[in-house]
Amino acid sequence: MRGAVLHSPGDVRFEECDEPKIIAPTDAVIRVSATCVCGSDLWPYRGIQAVEQPTPMGHEYCGIVEEVGSAVTSVKPGQFVIGSFFASDNTCPHCKAGYQTSCEHREFVGGAQAPRLRVPLADGTLVATREVPSDDLIPSLLAASDVLGTGWFAADAANVKRGSTVVVVGDGAVGLLAVLSAKQLGADRIIAMSRHEPRQKLAHEFGATDIVTDRGDGGVARIKELTKGIGADCVLECVGTQESMLQAIGAARPGGYVSYVGVPHGVTLDGQNLFFRHVHLHGGPAPVRRYLPDLIERIWSGGIDPGKVFDLKLPLENVAEGYRAMDERRAIKALLRP
Amino acid sequence: MRGAVLHSPGDVRFEECDEPKIIAPTDAVIRVSATCVCGSDLWPYRGIQAVEQPTPMGHEYCGIVEEVGSAVTSVKPGQFVIGSFFASDNTCPHCKAGYQTSCEHREFVGGAQAPRLRVPLADGTLVATREVPSDDLIPSLLAASDVLGTGWFAADAANVKRGSTVVVVGDGAVGLLAVLSAKQLGADRIIAMSRHEPRQKLAHEFGATDIVTDRGDGGVARIKELTKGIGADCVLECVGTQESMLQAIGAARPGGYVSYVGVPHGVTLDGQNLFFRHVHLHGGPAPVRRYLPDLIERIWSGGIDPGKVFDLKLPLENVAEGYRAMDERRAIKALLRP
Repeated sequence: MRGAVLHSPGDVRFEECDEPKIIAPTDAVIRVSATCVCGSDLWPYRGIQAVEQPTPMGHEYCGIVEEVGSAVTSVKPGQFVIGSFFASDNTCPHCKAGYQTSCEHREFVGGAQAPRLRVPLADGTLVATREVPSDDLIPSLLAASDVLGTGWFAADAANVKRGSTVVVVGDGAVGLLAVLSAKQLGADRIIAMSRHEPRQKLAHEFGATDIVTDRGDGGVARIKELTKGIGADCVLECVGTQESMLQAIGAARPGGYVSYVGVPHGVTLDGQNLFFRHVHLHGGPAPVRRYLPDLIERIWSGGIDPGKVFDLKLPLENVAEGYRAMDERRAIKALLRP
Repeated sequence: MRGAVLHSPGDVRFEECDEPKIIAPTDAVIRVSATCVCGSDLWPYRGIQAVEQPTPMGHEYCGIVEEVGSAVTSVKPGQFVIGSFFASDNTCPHCKAGYQTSCEHREFVGGAQAPRLRVPLADGTLVATREVPSDDLIPSLLAASDVLGTGWFAADAANVKRGSTVVVVGDGAVGLLAVLSAKQLGADRIIAMSRHEPRQKLAHEFGATDIVTDRGDGGVARIKELTKGIGADCVLECVGTQESMLQAIGAARPGGYVSYVGVPHGVTLDGQNLFFRHVHLHGGPAPVRRYLPDLIERIWSGGIDPGKVFDLKLPLENVAEGYRAMDERRAIKALLRP
């Protein structure tokens, strides 16, 4: 089969790869219905994270189970399933506490930008839908695999609840779906920080009530202005840079909550600043598995349409164009169909 | 009157000071029944924090109201009251959210190591007891003014609840009272990190179930060992150094809670470490005012005896010996009576 392999910054090739096979009895192999390019794929693509060897890319996926190992009991061939970027046993103490991305046996799922994919720990990782979905649901179900689950974690980790005033820092797919998640969790006011007109539009569609285009100290001042000098109850940091983190911490009220869900790159926090800001801080790799059953249900019932973040749809063989379009911010997120 | 004034590192003098007066209509002046030396007083005493001019010391106090300004309505002369280190109006949005130490009108209360003290924003700051307490209750009520309130915030901010496994980093008065607070909030297991035999003993009296003497990576390894490799649900950091913060973060389980209540000195946190540790982080100057009514009630009913942290009692004029004894760790905490 042919899949996406990153050779060096900027060089993604669609080329011959090994066919995935069942290796452990807990594995499944799925036929990928749709996959996509992640904001985090851009870190190595842009050379910010080292590319040490040709690397099969992609960790967002949904599809039909083709084969399962002898120990797998909860999914079976023919079912449509969704999983996420870390495989988890879903039984260890960390999984039971809802932190499946810190599972004692976690394993990164790579190489999803391909027609077929091996998923380890299938019982703990994959969630089957009640039946094979119609084609129009595929983008939203794929979004649940990572960006929706991550945006949802951002909202949950920042304690968004009925009546909250929320700020979302970052207008990538995760930030936009953090807006949607905050809306679903009952936020009253959702301020999206964005400078890009098409993204502002989607933020509004997902539930944003205000848009702030300023950044850094100016952005913080504007948030204070919009909240009568108080600051926001909840700030969802969906970028992962030093500037965005400080902006998020500055925008929160004392006693407010800041979540961060993008892998921090070059972020260091000063203890005294955090101390006197009085904020709550929580984040990490989103435990998407915790939220998957609920998210699938919300999509299935038509309550949410997170698939709207895919503003570029390509055949898998054009994967390199997907990377380029996202790198140049011509696309919010590229969906790929094998 | 004479009170404690810090002139330079190591040089605390008991000397003539101005008599406090009502300046604003919201002020009260109290006759101090007891005051004490705080761990945070040792930062400038040790020269770690600059002493820019002779500074009246002390911010922990309880006593009898002598005089109130014309706008004060909730306390009156003759009442016994307890306040804390930041005066607060207790009506602004930050106060209403329970963060009185971030009050929009907060004002530091200094100069409590003296026979009389001006307290700004008396209505929002002082809490009166139902009657003038007997002498044996004074140490515990004084403890509520800062160290107990701070230990309680440490436990609350780290989400301690029935059944929690708790680690307390730091065996100063705040750390010891964080142990007491965790016990009151229902913790099942309380692991105190301490190397000092008399402090270990008091930790046990307050509810510690285990003592760990190792520090740094060794301390973290020992906590992991004691928790079946999982880590603690709640870690209460009561020191404020880089080493103690990293120890606290390392000791928490993924999804666990780390609180920090000592002003951080030289602490910087790496974003990626925090991210992959999956911890919750919350702290700051303890909003003691939030907890005062409840803490006074618990002391009054005999449920807790936080006054045990005062293992040295001196007449106020011997204040310099109180600083020396705490600096040399001969005393946990020195109580001073004018």
